[in-house]
Amino acid sequence: MNRNLIFACLIVLQSNVFLFSQNDDDAFYIKEIYNYSLSDAKTYEYLRGLCKDVGPRLSGSAGAATGVEYVKTNLEALNLDRVYKVECMVPHWEHHNASKVSLDIDGKEMQLNCTPLGNSVSTNGKIITGKIIEVKHLDSLEKLGKDQIEGNIVFFNRPMDPTLLSTGHAYGAAVDQRVYGPTKAAKFGAKATLVRSMTTLIDDLPHTGVTVYDSIYKIPALAISTKDAEYLSDQIEKDPNVQISVFSDAENFEKKLSHSVVGEIKGSDFPDEIILVGGHLDSWDLGEGAHDDGTGCAQSMAVLETLKSMNYKPKRTIRCVLFMNEENGLAGGLSYAKQSNDLGEKHIAAIESDGGGFTPRGFSCTAEESVFIEHFKTLNTLFEPLESYDLYLKKGGGGADINPLKSQQGILIGLRVDNARYFDLHHTAADVLENVNQRELELGAAAMTSLVYLIDQYGI
Amino acid sequence: MNRNLIFACLIVLQSNVFLFSQNDDDAFYIKEIYNYSLSDAKTYEYLRGLCKDVGPRLSGSAGAATGVEYVKTNLEALNLDRVYKVECMVPHWEHHNASKVSLDIDGKEMQLNCTPLGNSVSTNGKIITGKIIEVKHLDSLEKLGKDQIEGNIVFFNRPMDPTLLSTGHAYGAAVDQRVYGPTKAAKFGAKATLVRSMTTLIDDLPHTGVTVYDSIYKIPALAISTKDAEYLSDQIEKDPNVQISVFSDAENFEKKLSHSVVGEIKGSDFPDEIILVGGHLDSWDLGEGAHDDGTGCAQSMAVLETLKSMNYKPKRTIRCVLFMNEENGLAGGLSYAKQSNDLGEKHIAAIESDGGGFTPRGFSCTAEESVFIEHFKTLNTLFEPLESYDLYLKKGGGGADINPLKSQQGILIGLRVDNARYFDLHHTAADVLENVNQRELELGAAAMTSLVYLIDQYGI
Repeated sequence: MNRNLIFACLIVLQSNVFLFSQNDDDAFYIKEIYNYSLSDAKTYEYLRGLCKDVGPRLSGSAGAATGVEYVKTNLEALNLDRVYKVECMVPHWEHHNASKVSLDIDGKEMQLNCTPLGNSVSTNGKIITGKIIEVKHLDSLEKLGKDQIEGNIVFFNRPMDPTLLSTGHAYGAAVDQRVYGPTKAAKFGAKATLVRSMTTLIDDLPHTGVTVYDSIYKIPALAISTKDAEYLSDQIEKDPNVQISVFSDAENFEKKLSHSVVGEIKGSDFPDEIILVGGHLDSWDLGEGAHDDGTGCAQSMAVLETLKSMNYKPKRTIRCVLFMNEENGLAGGLSYAKQSNDLGEKHIAAIESDGGGFTPRGFSCTAEESVFIEHFKTLNTLFEPLESYDLYLKKGGGGADINPLKSQQGILIGLRVDNARYFDLHHTAADVLENVNQRELELGAAAMTSLVYLIDQYGI
Repeated sequence: MNRNLIFACLIVLQSNVFLFSQNDDDAFYIKEIYNYSLSDAKTYEYLRGLCKDVGPRLSGSAGAATGVEYVKTNLEALNLDRVYKVECMVPHWEHHNASKVSLDIDGKEMQLNCTPLGNSVSTNGKIITGKIIEVKHLDSLEKLGKDQIEGNIVFFNRPMDPTLLSTGHAYGAAVDQRVYGPTKAAKFGAKATLVRSMTTLIDDLPHTGVTVYDSIYKIPALAISTKDAEYLSDQIEKDPNVQISVFSDAENFEKKLSHSVVGEIKGSDFPDEIILVGGHLDSWDLGEGAHDDGTGCAQSMAVLETLKSMNYKPKRTIRCVLFMNEENGLAGGLSYAKQSNDLGEKHIAAIESDGGGFTPRGFSCTAEESVFIEHFKTLNTLFEPLESYDLYLKKGGGGADINPLKSQQGILIGLRVDNARYFDLHHTAADVLENVNQRELELGAAAMTSLVYLIDQYGI
């Protein structure tokens, strides 16, 4: 820390020195943050534990409960000022990998790669058989009407558009089929629904994800792989009356008590100004919830671990929150915000990492750019000597789990990462540790820690 | 192409319309380029063929010769104006995977993961055994002197620095050990050399790569994996006299005739102004030469394929060059430049892709920024409506194969990609198709094609 001494001396020598010394100090700290994040930080080890020791962490499952204890134990080991749990009541949905979708092709059974959609209902132990109605848009259901849909199985088959440069936008433009398709098909009398998996890849992996029923219309709903969606479409073209059989073993149980987990370093000067970093602890039960969102949890924990290792004493309160139940209910995000509001807390900034552990590209932010631009400029200028690394800041959303905090009028920020590979893995059995690159993960943690540092130094 | 008609009409209506219509036209074309690149282009198929049908393509090997025919056949299928080969004499070095490095630990033989360095000599059918001298820097050899080095085996063990944000810079700061270490150790009487593999990962993969001998001092030289380098270092600390055995089956043969391959679309207005896109066809013999540099070849071929598919008629001559022998000699780059100079050709721009098929981040360019900034601005502005995709342009190198063209005083440009994962795979058995992401590869091809389009439209 010799440099700090030099800066202290400079203060008495230079007129405009305060800003200068601050910025140089910042550059020093941010370089230290990157050095630690890329060499000694526990980010990857946290993720390894979540993926391999804990495994999948579907809300309400034993894995989710183990995950809560895993992160709590690891946060406690950091010697923070406070580690605690926040209760929430989560949906408890399960399936047992016995679901099946098959086609009868000239008397031969062709099985399709499938998985039930999150929160969906079962086929009540029976196999549902019927004709398939293929549609590309929810609107098509009105055009077809009850006459053509009733008693049949609706197949939503609009691909994610690979020509959109943001795969997130491509996902957003296709996912209505999965979220609202099943309940809408049910209103027109369909007895089951199949949905093409949400990915631009053509492969054999089925992608799960939440479906949202209204209170009345609930029919079994499964995703099939994109390769099988193309195959099914071809078969329908050959024979519009081809028969499909659907079996789903999904089950909904009573809601369960679960928890989000919080670790906190108390601020010295402005303890009531909270800076939050977070990700979600729950995952789907396929794979290990590595990129979604083990990486966001590991990075958020690493922010505190890195600051503690540097013996950094924050001015403001820095809190790591691992939210429960982002995937199928958001119970954790909602209960955390409610408790925080009840306590009269003020989150001046909340940073969420839930886009996968890929190379960071920047941050999206709910604030007007003019509000945040000075901080961003500082950040970006500071990265320049670090070999032309670029992080952008753009107006945009923060994230699902931190959105409920918006009434506190702080700034909500999302870590934006390279998104080329995310939807190859998203909600599949391939979302495992082996598909996370350690360096990419660590770069994200370093970016988050740097931003937390700057917000802590300068406030909002 | 209705938009073109609209623009034509606008020209008579608006005063400043020329620029406006041009820019809008550009946006249209660039969006078309991205659409094609991300859906129908053959980029991934070209790469699949190079990796799986051809396989490794070490200069002078049968694989390299097959590679030449593979790309020539595929370029010919594009109905270009010209496809031809350019001769070069390449080194012919081989090894046969029987090399071995082992330690004698309490009478037990511990094998280390190793591979001979490119161009290195063999142990002449014998096993060389001796004491190990571990050093971190080439300078250390002078300090130790002939007394301590002669008759021993020198082990270069300076890790790549993971805290440098550019892994390329980290590689550049460590690779002197591999390139110049062996011949320098030989000058001090060492009888063999081991070099820690060039990666920040700690794993079992040995990374090969070229070593450069002077004309006299040649001793066997092998890379060992980083995990084994750490293990070896630990063993030396325990017992400085620990014995190591080294066997290398590397062989150097007479130079061989080989070829680079060129495909060309003739320009309509300025046929003498050449815009080059290229990568290198040769690879190391571990893995499949996927990221190094099958991806650059596939992208360069895809530039022509995309322009042909759009029925684009370039004003300038656009040439795809697949260079032979970048890895251990640069014979292809040198002979191509010589032939081009002899013919009095003028390359106004040359774009090389040799950083792996990862998400593009921008281009580095030998020109002063002021010269190129207008083109870049145009490019970047045009990307904006395409969902905030950002490509930077920075001053920097073009690439090894196009550097010999610099006497023609055109601009040399390198595609810069996300480099977090490159050195996990570089020069190893893991550099295979399965470790290339199709979308990342295609985004690079789209960026290259867009830049070629803009240079063709506006010149330099």
